Amino acid sequence: MIVVKLGGGQGLDYELFCDSVAELRAQGEALIVVHGGSARLNELAAALGRPPQFVTSPQGITSRFTDFAAMECFMMAYCGVVNKTLVERLQQRNVNAIGLSGLDGGIWSGPRKDATQVVENGVRRMLRGNLTGRVDRVNVTLLQQLLNKGYLPVLTPPALSDDLRAINVDGDRAAARTSVALGADAYVILTNMPGVLRDITDPASLVSELAVRFDAPSEHEFVQGRMRIKLLAAAEALEGGVPKVIVADGRQSSCIQRALSGQGTTIRLAESKRTTNTDPAERVS
Amino acid sequence: MIVVKLGGGQGLDYELFCDSVAELRAQGEALIVVHGGSARLNELAAALGRPPQFVTSPQGITSRFTDFAAMECFMMAYCGVVNKTLVERLQQRNVNAIGLSGLDGGIWSGPRKDATQVVENGVRRMLRGNLTGRVDRVNVTLLQQLLNKGYLPVLTPPALSDDLRAINVDGDRAAARTSVALGADAYVILTNMPGVLRDITDPASLVSELAVRFDAPSEHEFVQGRMRIKLLAAAEALEGGVPKVIVADGRQSSCIQRALSGQGTTIRLAESKRTTNTDPAERVS
Repeated sequence: MIVVKLGGGQGLDYELFCDSVAELRAQGEALIVVHGGSARLNELAAALGRPPQFVTSPQGITSRFTDFAAMECFMMAYCGVVNKTLVERLQQRNVNAIGLSGLDGGIWSGPRKDATQVVENGVRRMLRGNLTGRVDRVNVTLLQQLLNKGYLPVLTPPALSDDLRAINVDGDRAAARTSVALGADAYVILTNMPGVLRDITDPASLVSELAVRFDAPSEHEFVQGRMRIKLLAAAEALEGGVPKVIVADGRQSSCIQRALSGQGTTIRLAESKRTTNTDPAERVS
Repeated sequence: MIVVKLGGGQGLDYELFCDSVAELRAQGEALIVVHGGSARLNELAAALGRPPQFVTSPQGITSRFTDFAAMECFMMAYCGVVNKTLVERLQQRNVNAIGLSGLDGGIWSGPRKDATQVVENGVRRMLRGNLTGRVDRVNVTLLQQLLNKGYLPVLTPPALSDDLRAINVDGDRAAARTSVALGADAYVILTNMPGVLRDITDPASLVSELAVRFDAPSEHEFVQGRMRIKLLAAAEALEGGVPKVIVADGRQSSCIQRALSGQGTTIRLAESKRTTNTDPAERVS
């Protein structure tokens, strides 16, 4: 069983991706797809005159602040147009896809991080009302039932918080949690880059194998931006027992097959130097 | 088993509706919810500067023309914000809701009506590329499996056409087809009116019982606009063997319980004068 995360950035091609999924399914492979939708969300939010709000933590990490209006936009982009377009394209290839958010059947649930410490003009303050959090639990029973009946689940945030709100969760990490919960054979992270690059401006600088520490997935200085979260997700999947984790290019034909054959960046778990109980999730989310 | 259709017009209250659903579920009643989203769609389309296109048939009937861009808006409003908001609100009431479009798992499928005959400035012409059609088949197996496991399916258009495209279908009629396919005990149509009114401007003119002919559901002259389709859907459910069909007010507390107790308009099947094989669907869609 393979869990594939399709990024939500610009340049990803749904047709090529769905061809790759359909080919694997025709060979009898069980798959779960998790997708993002950030480019589509930004486009929609701009068109609606609701630009995304970003906040900066005392550690200097920038993240999206999701209030109620932003969550409505999020649902429209992720659960509406991206999820259903993927389901339609898969149905066109005789793949009986079933699109679900983490809310549906409580597929993804976990704690909400209501209060966010932010720095504005050099002053720290707590911002409340953030509809964000992380996935701690996966409804494995429902997903297994759907897989057993021949459906292909296509999953997307939001998730359901423990206080029963729709929350924005990181899709890469939710997919990692899903791959662990289902005991997947592989977790493939498809992005709009060839994999992890030593120099982000040079596609030829692809790192074919990278060892990451579970407690410090971003210690490599060339790992920046969104790729830091992807490597944290990769480390979480490996730490949870998923034997194969690859970050690869989602813009090519047979993209999943290429990734499984080793094209892209294969992630391995380096020996941890962990001495405290610090949860790495707390440091980057 | 009860199928409830919640309209998509203005004035419907999700909180009251979800309270009513949760109360029935707590009493052990099996339910399927089908919802619309027209008010939300019109609002979104206006905000995006993509006003809905309406066309007029040679019979003088006005309908929405759904091209690709309109279908994207449709997915955002119906499958995105309306479907997931309902699922979130039901989860808050300990109802394990699972939101699905007709595309997902091929829940609703049927023929597409690609070409639409329209009249523009008095001239008839064929307009192609309409992503619209009707539901002929329901994936009963999937819905029964979900019901048996304690989930509450929350369904919404679009459906999957026989040529594997996302198509706009009438929600009232899709719900009717679902109630027939599942052998429902009742089909409740909740709208933003007290039921069928003799005078649309007078809420006190409620018709408590109405006999409709399957081949002429709109023969009563006081039945106008959207209510014509609702009565067609009601007639289709009755003709298909659903013993109880009610059009009722969705803006009150315990709205489903009130409808089942007879508040609103109970629809009965009048003896048909059908002499030809004309499909009534063709006349009103």
